[in-house]
Amino acid sequence: MEQEDHHPGDSRFFSKSGPYTVEYLVRETGAQLTAPHQDINNVEFSGIAPLQSAISTEISFLDNKRYLPLLAETKAGMVIVAPAFVDKVPTTSCALVTSNPYLAWAKVATLFYPKVKAKAGIHPTAYIHPDATIDPSAEVQAFAVVMGGVHIGKECIVGAHTVIEQGVQIGQYCRIGSHVSLSHAVLGDRVTLYSGARIGQDGFGFAVGEQGFISIPQIGKVVLKNDVEIGANSTIDRGSVRDTIIGEGSRLDNLVQIGHNVQMGRCCIVVSQAGISGSTELGDFVTIAAQAGLIGHIHIGDRARVGAQCGVMSDVEAKSDVIGSPAMPFKEFFKNVAFLRRLAKTSKGKE
Amino acid sequence: MEQEDHHPGDSRFFSKSGPYTVEYLVRETGAQLTAPHQDINNVEFSGIAPLQSAISTEISFLDNKRYLPLLAETKAGMVIVAPAFVDKVPTTSCALVTSNPYLAWAKVATLFYPKVKAKAGIHPTAYIHPDATIDPSAEVQAFAVVMGGVHIGKECIVGAHTVIEQGVQIGQYCRIGSHVSLSHAVLGDRVTLYSGARIGQDGFGFAVGEQGFISIPQIGKVVLKNDVEIGANSTIDRGSVRDTIIGEGSRLDNLVQIGHNVQMGRCCIVVSQAGISGSTELGDFVTIAAQAGLIGHIHIGDRARVGAQCGVMSDVEAKSDVIGSPAMPFKEFFKNVAFLRRLAKTSKGKE
Amino acid sequence: MEQEDHHPGDSRFFSKSGPYTVEYLVRETGAQLTAPHQDINNVEFSGIAPLQSAISTEISFLDNKRYLPLLAETKAGMVIVAPAFVDKVPTTSCALVTSNPYLAWAKVATLFYPKVKAKAGIHPTAYIHPDATIDPSAEVQAFAVVMGGVHIGKECIVGAHTVIEQGVQIGQYCRIGSHVSLSHAVLGDRVTLYSGARIGQDGFGFAVGEQGFISIPQIGKVVLKNDVEIGANSTIDRGSVRDTIIGEGSRLDNLVQIGHNVQMGRCCIVVSQAGISGSTELGDFVTIAAQAGLIGHIHIGDRARVGAQCGVMSDVEAKSDVIGSPAMPFKEFFKNVAFLRRLAKTSKGKE
Repeated sequence: MEQEDHHPGDSRFFSKSGPYTVEYLVRETGAQLTAPHQDINNVEFSGIAPLQSAISTEISFLDNKRYLPLLAETKAGMVIVAPAFVDKVPTTSCALVTSNPYLAWAKVATLFYPKVKAKAGIHPTAYIHPDATIDPSAEVQAFAVVMGGVHIGKECIVGAHTVIEQGVQIGQYCRIGSHVSLSHAVLGDRVTLYSGARIGQDGFGFAVGEQGFISIPQIGKVVLKNDVEIGANSTIDRGSVRDTIIGEGSRLDNLVQIGHNVQMGRCCIVVSQAGISGSTELGDFVTIAAQAGLIGHIHIGDRARVGAQCGVMSDVEAKSDVIGSPAMPFKEFFKNVAFLRRLAKTSKGKE
Repeated sequence: MEQEDHHPGDSRFFSKSGPYTVEYLVRETGAQLTAPHQDINNVEFSGIAPLQSAISTEISFLDNKRYLPLLAETKAGMVIVAPAFVDKVPTTSCALVTSNPYLAWAKVATLFYPKVKAKAGIHPTAYIHPDATIDPSAEVQAFAVVMGGVHIGKECIVGAHTVIEQGVQIGQYCRIGSHVSLSHAVLGDRVTLYSGARIGQDGFGFAVGEQGFISIPQIGKVVLKNDVEIGANSTIDRGSVRDTIIGEGSRLDNLVQIGHNVQMGRCCIVVSQAGISGSTELGDFVTIAAQAGLIGHIHIGDRARVGAQCGVMSDVEAKSDVIGSPAMPFKEFFKNVAFLRRLAKTSKGKE
Repeated sequence: MEQEDHHPGDSRFFSKSGPYTVEYLVRETGAQLTAPHQDINNVEFSGIAPLQSAISTEISFLDNKRYLPLLAETKAGMVIVAPAFVDKVPTTSCALVTSNPYLAWAKVATLFYPKVKAKAGIHPTAYIHPDATIDPSAEVQAFAVVMGGVHIGKECIVGAHTVIEQGVQIGQYCRIGSHVSLSHAVLGDRVTLYSGARIGQDGFGFAVGEQGFISIPQIGKVVLKNDVEIGANSTIDRGSVRDTIIGEGSRLDNLVQIGHNVQMGRCCIVVSQAGISGSTELGDFVTIAAQAGLIGHIHIGDRARVGAQCGVMSDVEAKSDVIGSPAMPFKEFFKNVAFLRRLAKTSKGKE
């Protein structure tokens, strides 16, 4: 394998917009400019890059103290930083100063790399059932399958090999990756599903009969509200007798499991490999960190945060932080860990 | 996104059978009727719904004490309950009383929503190798790939985009979802594979050589016995020198990992995101809860239960319950948790 | 379901090479022969099997003390063993003695079951963009999608239904399973991707804006170096502003999650259902056991080993072994476990 160039924005995969003047960037981000001289407003920037590889015509950012040593040595012509770090920006760079550098970075990066738009049309290899209605502005890629009764809205993108089963409703500006399975589902606008997501299959519901397990018909659906995002290879089961609902703006990472009847509020975050068991309810702005697991039939209050690998067996109050398995308040967990460590050490001599 | 109706059985996705008389429902469930008046036998019920949304012509059920407040307010015309809760059923409803309400519910729900049957025929876009034999009553959906030497039995359904590699044997009445990869495998009757399941790929087996890792040919297969169900995006590796075997009636949830050579008995349950390492053996009726992990080369006895997030590093005796990482008896785990919590509290003052 | 024959190498799925003489096997493995008589060199062996089912013309191996009782009763004509176990080999077998029996087994098994080679050609149902370049010796299976700017090297195999998005570069002798999604990626030689792997989708990166989350364009790529293997349904996100890199010879099992910007060194092992968060770096020869989770932005030193279900929240030194959540040295973890167990026992009387 030849040496790879690791500079971002590889032209084989990305097409770049710009360049943009400093004046324009300041206006778009609403940030404060700290520059070595006044004539900078018409200087143009042509791209973005990380601190360690940016050049003088590129913009970078600092969002994590851990990378301050990289800031000291950056060749970037402009750096987005929080007020606390302005004086750490090298004199060869100008600073875009804002209380939320990551948000400003999101805005700047999107100027250079705007979202790809739908290329209207249906690939000739796709199979479209005659009773499906697809907006003419939508893009349907190779070998996609769209069954009867499906509705696909304005400027949606349906990836290659995705299967949309009977009756599924999809709003506007949705982006569905490749190899997605989508059934028994109603999607709002601007919903994003990454490759391999499985939405709407039967929940894991069965009764114990005389001769083995008896499946229970799962007759709810999945509702993904506006601006929901679902990661690659994640699985969301449809409801048993009510619906599985993912609230507006919520984002699920890769390999996440959502059981039947789960109800999730607005702007929740569920990080990779976490799992939420059937009928559990989340309020708004709840964060579930990676590999955490929630038992079924419990309630997690608004703005609660569940730590990585946490095992949650009972309700969690709004705004509380829990971690550990079984879950306990953050402070208690780390106190226990320290306590046990100390005890084990002092008991050393006795063994 | 418009307001969604969350009543179950959305006609865009489901077609309903019925209505059924009370007499018929009593006979089919074998349950006891408790009704406000004698003339109820010919009354008809037209559907099922959860306690909170059921109307007077619908049937509901109670299986979890947690939902008793919903029972008190239900408008359902009939409720399936255990004997202990008969007197909690509102006088506006009649009660179907049984010691196993969930099983009765399964039966009733299946009357209204029977399993979809195979629509005989091969979709014109599917690729079928000339040496495959597919029963004429089977349904093969769009873009499915069926290779040489494959046998597919009576009334099977093969989902869109599923790939069945050379030589795979599939019994009768199997249901295979979309996007399934199936190789080196032999399936019994009534096996269900959900979307994105990966069955039969190489196990994770390699030796450490002088210049890196050397793969070991994996020459076993996967055997899925009658009535097995495998969840969405789950992975089952084929055996290295013997077979990976999932016993009759066992059910695996979504995102489950089964290593090579695992041998699972009858009617085991493996909940979402659990993983079983290579060559481990499970008896019959074993339950592995969500996110649990089992090391390789161990044995789990009949009817043992492994708790959520449990890390099992050694054999587990039949009928025992273990939890924690490393695994310990249920009682010991919760005693330790309580003990540690108490100690940490009493030591508070000292810090 | 009829009784299945569980002997390895089922001819419906595998084609076998051989037979091979003892002399040839000794030469190829570099192992020492211990045989009951001198005339054995020209005796031929026709296959391989586990200790419990091998017959006199077959070769088996012992690599785990746990299976010594099976060695005592084996009918195998030849057994590969470490020097310590030579005297446990029954007198009816000859022994191939080597300090690394598993490696010798890999070599012998590969003689009988060599890797399947690419069958040059593109399946007529595949969709190939006119601007893709595919080596004529490569095999592209049914319904594969290969977009513009893609390069596929010598003797690669691209499985059925795999989607290779614009610009992806693939070296020589790569093996890509079915249903793989591959985008924004550069692959070396002899890379193996199992079915359902998702490589190159957007990382989980967003800023918190006034009205919800704002996605951050992910403009890095994924680099999979020579001899990398990625398990079924695993997910590797592309970098945000730098690349996600999997080092030469590293092997990832099924259902593994790799966040954006992760940098992994040479010959690392990541076992099933483990997850590595964004921007974390691994040295060479690092082992991450099943279901372990690593927080983002940390560094794991060369040859470190992270135990199953471990939760790693900070840097791990080279050559160290950690386990537990939060991670601690192996010894400390098991000491704590033992300590807690003892304390809980002695406090029993008081409750």
